[in-house]
Amino acid sequence: MDKEHHMRAYRLTQGGGIEGLTRVDLPEPAPGPGEVAVRVRATSLNYRDLGVARRSAAAVIPLSDGAGEIVAVGEGARLAIGDRVCGCFMPHWRDGDVTPEYQRDALGGTVDGMLAEVIVLPAASVVRIPDYLSFEEAATLPCAAVTAWNALFEATHLKPGQTVLLLGTGGVSIFGLQLGVAAGMRTIVTSSSNEKLAQARALGAHATVNYREQEDWERAVLELTNGRGVDLVLEVGGVGTFAKSNACTRVGGSIVIIGALAPDQGGGLAPLVARNVRATRISVGSRRMFEDMNRALEVGGVRPVIDRVFEFEQALEAYRYLESQAHFGKVVVRV
Amino acid sequence: MDKEHHMRAYRLTQGGGIEGLTRVDLPEPAPGPGEVAVRVRATSLNYRDLGVARRSAAAVIPLSDGAGEIVAVGEGARLAIGDRVCGCFMPHWRDGDVTPEYQRDALGGTVDGMLAEVIVLPAASVVRIPDYLSFEEAATLPCAAVTAWNALFEATHLKPGQTVLLLGTGGVSIFGLQLGVAAGMRTIVTSSSNEKLAQARALGAHATVNYREQEDWERAVLELTNGRGVDLVLEVGGVGTFAKSNACTRVGGSIVIIGALAPDQGGGLAPLVARNVRATRISVGSRRMFEDMNRALEVGGVRPVIDRVFEFEQALEAYRYLESQAHFGKVVVRV
Amino acid sequence: MDKEHHMRAYRLTQGGGIEGLTRVDLPEPAPGPGEVAVRVRATSLNYRDLGVARRSAAAVIPLSDGAGEIVAVGEGARLAIGDRVCGCFMPHWRDGDVTPEYQRDALGGTVDGMLAEVIVLPAASVVRIPDYLSFEEAATLPCAAVTAWNALFEATHLKPGQTVLLLGTGGVSIFGLQLGVAAGMRTIVTSSSNEKLAQARALGAHATVNYREQEDWERAVLELTNGRGVDLVLEVGGVGTFAKSNACTRVGGSIVIIGALAPDQGGGLAPLVARNVRATRISVGSRRMFEDMNRALEVGGVRPVIDRVFEFEQALEAYRYLESQAHFGKVVVRV
Amino acid sequence: MDKEHHMRAYRLTQGGGIEGLTRVDLPEPAPGPGEVAVRVRATSLNYRDLGVARRSAAAVIPLSDGAGEIVAVGEGARLAIGDRVCGCFMPHWRDGDVTPEYQRDALGGTVDGMLAEVIVLPAASVVRIPDYLSFEEAATLPCAAVTAWNALFEATHLKPGQTVLLLGTGGVSIFGLQLGVAAGMRTIVTSSSNEKLAQARALGAHATVNYREQEDWERAVLELTNGRGVDLVLEVGGVGTFAKSNACTRVGGSIVIIGALAPDQGGGLAPLVARNVRATRISVGSRRMFEDMNRALEVGGVRPVIDRVFEFEQALEAYRYLESQAHFGKVVVRV
Repeated sequence: MDKEHHMRAYRLTQGGGIEGLTRVDLPEPAPGPGEVAVRVRATSLNYRDLGVARRSAAAVIPLSDGAGEIVAVGEGARLAIGDRVCGCFMPHWRDGDVTPEYQRDALGGTVDGMLAEVIVLPAASVVRIPDYLSFEEAATLPCAAVTAWNALFEATHLKPGQTVLLLGTGGVSIFGLQLGVAAGMRTIVTSSSNEKLAQARALGAHATVNYREQEDWERAVLELTNGRGVDLVLEVGGVGTFAKSNACTRVGGSIVIIGALAPDQGGGLAPLVARNVRATRISVGSRRMFEDMNRALEVGGVRPVIDRVFEFEQALEAYRYLESQAHFGKVVVRV
Repeated sequence: MDKEHHMRAYRLTQGGGIEGLTRVDLPEPAPGPGEVAVRVRATSLNYRDLGVARRSAAAVIPLSDGAGEIVAVGEGARLAIGDRVCGCFMPHWRDGDVTPEYQRDALGGTVDGMLAEVIVLPAASVVRIPDYLSFEEAATLPCAAVTAWNALFEATHLKPGQTVLLLGTGGVSIFGLQLGVAAGMRTIVTSSSNEKLAQARALGAHATVNYREQEDWERAVLELTNGRGVDLVLEVGGVGTFAKSNACTRVGGSIVIIGALAPDQGGGLAPLVARNVRATRISVGSRRMFEDMNRALEVGGVRPVIDRVFEFEQALEAYRYLESQAHFGKVVVRV
Repeated sequence: MDKEHHMRAYRLTQGGGIEGLTRVDLPEPAPGPGEVAVRVRATSLNYRDLGVARRSAAAVIPLSDGAGEIVAVGEGARLAIGDRVCGCFMPHWRDGDVTPEYQRDALGGTVDGMLAEVIVLPAASVVRIPDYLSFEEAATLPCAAVTAWNALFEATHLKPGQTVLLLGTGGVSIFGLQLGVAAGMRTIVTSSSNEKLAQARALGAHATVNYREQEDWERAVLELTNGRGVDLVLEVGGVGTFAKSNACTRVGGSIVIIGALAPDQGGGLAPLVARNVRATRISVGSRRMFEDMNRALEVGGVRPVIDRVFEFEQALEAYRYLESQAHFGKVVVRV
Repeated sequence: MDKEHHMRAYRLTQGGGIEGLTRVDLPEPAPGPGEVAVRVRATSLNYRDLGVARRSAAAVIPLSDGAGEIVAVGEGARLAIGDRVCGCFMPHWRDGDVTPEYQRDALGGTVDGMLAEVIVLPAASVVRIPDYLSFEEAATLPCAAVTAWNALFEATHLKPGQTVLLLGTGGVSIFGLQLGVAAGMRTIVTSSSNEKLAQARALGAHATVNYREQEDWERAVLELTNGRGVDLVLEVGGVGTFAKSNACTRVGGSIVIIGALAPDQGGGLAPLVARNVRATRISVGSRRMFEDMNRALEVGGVRPVIDRVFEFEQALEAYRYLESQAHFGKVVVRV
């Protein structure tokens, strides 16, 4: 491509927090062999992006999550111009278990992310998006939805009829709820807001618990399972909730710990796995998991829940809105 | 119990086929330690029961499938009078993989079955039935439904969004369809009858193929999956269909062979597993699988499809009706 | 059997600790239907038995571990007089995952155990012992060896060439070492005693670390794995060591927490699973696991390490010797 | 690199069979971004290479198996000059299950292979070889050894103490034997040659059966397992032996079908999976499997069995020698 082509983008400033987010104009990148250029149409924010902004050690284009269409194809790349795609959170994790090699690079963290008009990615790290989803909807999938998929169907082998407990109504939990409902599971959701619990029930939650009204919510969960305990907890709360999650998981059940939150909390203390329970920490998921999930979304007709869409120039407002935790579902930035 | 108590029952006659089915009056059995007596309310037939009638080497009370309520509890049995239960197909298979030790005994085959007013069973081989099911509905579960569950969620780990191919509209296939739909899978059903295919679509089948109208139905299935192939075939046809099933299963997919049919066919010849496919023969399932399945049925609100209910005195008509293959769904005999 | 037959046995006294251990003469029990009577020849002690003695809520014959020969067979029990057998730690856990139903009963804890001349057990909860093992050797298997087997081959699927870390030289760790060596794994053992580490190396340990000489032993373990971390830790230490175990487990590796120790420590605090690691707490294992393990022992020609054999009249000395932690390998009491 | 650099190599001639093998001089290839150039030191032959020569549709440098050292490193490739490596059979299969995408390219089949002085490969498709192996030994690993590893530890989860049946003494079977012995399994080997069976026993085979002397060798295998059957058969024979393999596999056991042989046999007929057995066809394995296997080889000190080493100029003789089936172990060509 011509060097005169420029694109709009954002960069974080080293040590600048979210206020360091800066609009820049950059040369539009062109794909090398095995790569594709994607014209980004929409992006989406995750709590992880707040942490990245705080810790950012160098200027990087932020955000792992986005969707767009392919506008240029490098030699040997098996995709076509016009294909609608997302990128994968970790561009080198295609299949199998996660390894340090795969964890090294993550979009919008250690390598440039999606908050730009064009991104160049290895053809092997993009995923086609289902036709029935808009770019805004598809932009919400790469981090939160794949993490929820991994928790329910990869890190554990949950079956229909089993019970999954979702803590709170953040992005991973809501996708966990929707995937669980689509897969014939029983779902229990906790929140401090009765309004959000009502929204969860509207999405299919079989039971809900307000943990502000009932501090020993683990007892409520046990009662909802006739004392047996749930088969899986999506543990997004970390040290603050792990003991209670442990107490309401059945003998032989699983707690999947979502990696996004706890590292920020300094690796603090929490009760050890105290019963015949399996605790596994996961990190998003592979390209293959993303593809498998897309099939499930399509069969179930699952539509991601979008709370609010911001325009490209409002990216900083989007960050602040996420930080306020007022949302239910995903926060999207159009590009 | 008093020795004067008698009950109505049926027995097969050695070598008599289904015409050898005989109404008898027998002393009502009483539970020993660790056993329970079940007042049978409804039973259900499977193709396997036709084979048992043909091969029957001794007089046995037929039928593996039935549901009723507990009327007497032996010492140490952890169940209560009034509990609504089914028996397990193999009374000693509680959990884990099947073994020859578990296969030795099967209700209505090598040990007395359910076509009687009362049956005594080990407390550890009965399963509580969901409240929302009638006795007639629950009576259809032990063989066909548990087999379908095993195929979809135990012998393989099917995930939502994957595609399962059901051959025909017999009991196992219809339960496979219903369980697949409840679990967010894509389902394809074959039949020689457009009327039965319409019924399958009404139950949620995503696509159907009439194998009489389209003899190379495996090509139709491949097209329905964009050339990829299905993730799982429930192979109930045996040698006659295996080559075609093989041809429309994806690389890395599975064919689960249902044990009921093929042994009757003399272990004939069929094409070997010819691609990167896994073929597994299964035999119904364990008590734990039955219990897990019941949870899935309940969350999904799945109702077994009953074609026709016969009265106890019409048991022979029920056998003949099953043999005619006119049915769609299960054939039930009330007790 | 005649009611005049008496046998020698021990009972714990409620609240009496190990000093409450009391020699008693009891009527010799006879097998009912489905049961067998075992003439116990040798028993073995585990740390768990010290805890049972301390917590004992009622008079119970102690010890889960023992081996002997069948002297009487109840109706329907598929075993023969003279069969050499062990009992299973949890008599009702035959196969599949552990459940609260199986956990309810455990030999020498909630039901009478092996420190007696004769024990009656369900035929389905005894396991034949390999011919090449003496009764003393076989008596060491039911708790510690089955636990180590479960950790290496059931709770995780360890493969040859993978690295397992054994903490200390207690019974579970030494069996873990021997099973790991027999299965082609790399083994690393820690201890505070160089003499015990030399014994571990004589049993095949590939590397050893003295955690008294090197307090940050997790760094030594990381170096021994070129920074990658081990594939599995058999975590017998509980809260005191979990953080270090976590730090030297590879991304995607496993920590199996042995249930015996931590419950005594009041369910204290420990660092949460902090990396992409899976932590699973296990409880001994099923009959099927025991049988599978026996095949592995036999192929590997593995001989349990016995530190010292006490006579029946010295049972209390055996308890005290175990408490002293001077042993390397198992403490046996002949019956 | 300079365009004057040439290298020695072989090419197959379209439709020429093994006699079409031709010595050629080719420009030495240089690595692009993410690639490495490997100076091949030794290669090894598999039966598959005979099939490739027969079917060869275009001129290709043959042989999937070879070992050498890196002599040039493209930009971004995380390897160093001097690293001792093998290539992977399918260069794009890094981890996870096989897919058609991975199967498209295979060294020495659809893309150029190792029978040349230099090969350029993606850095992500080479595997470091253990220090203790010579280039000749390492050259034998990519196809046959990885296939055997996949069969024993990936397609199934064989445990120590289980029994594996190896049919014949070809490359896959001998590696299966060595890996099985190193992993604490019981091994049974069949052959028509008592001399080869003696060699198998010298490598650790626990039992052997001469299938020429005992035509119903499946009965001999059943007897060797006390009627239980083996846990796994490495089925390299295809349609000719499948029925017998089926008959001597235990209930719940596995038959892994090695893809190399049967496709040549026209997808012929064989008895269907007739018992509760799982039959899986596999295709070599992924890079991750190769790396895991190398760790197991190293812990076990396993040395590949080399029957004979040919010089580069004798490549055709090596092909003919393989075809004669006189060998026990691998046929190597030095480069």
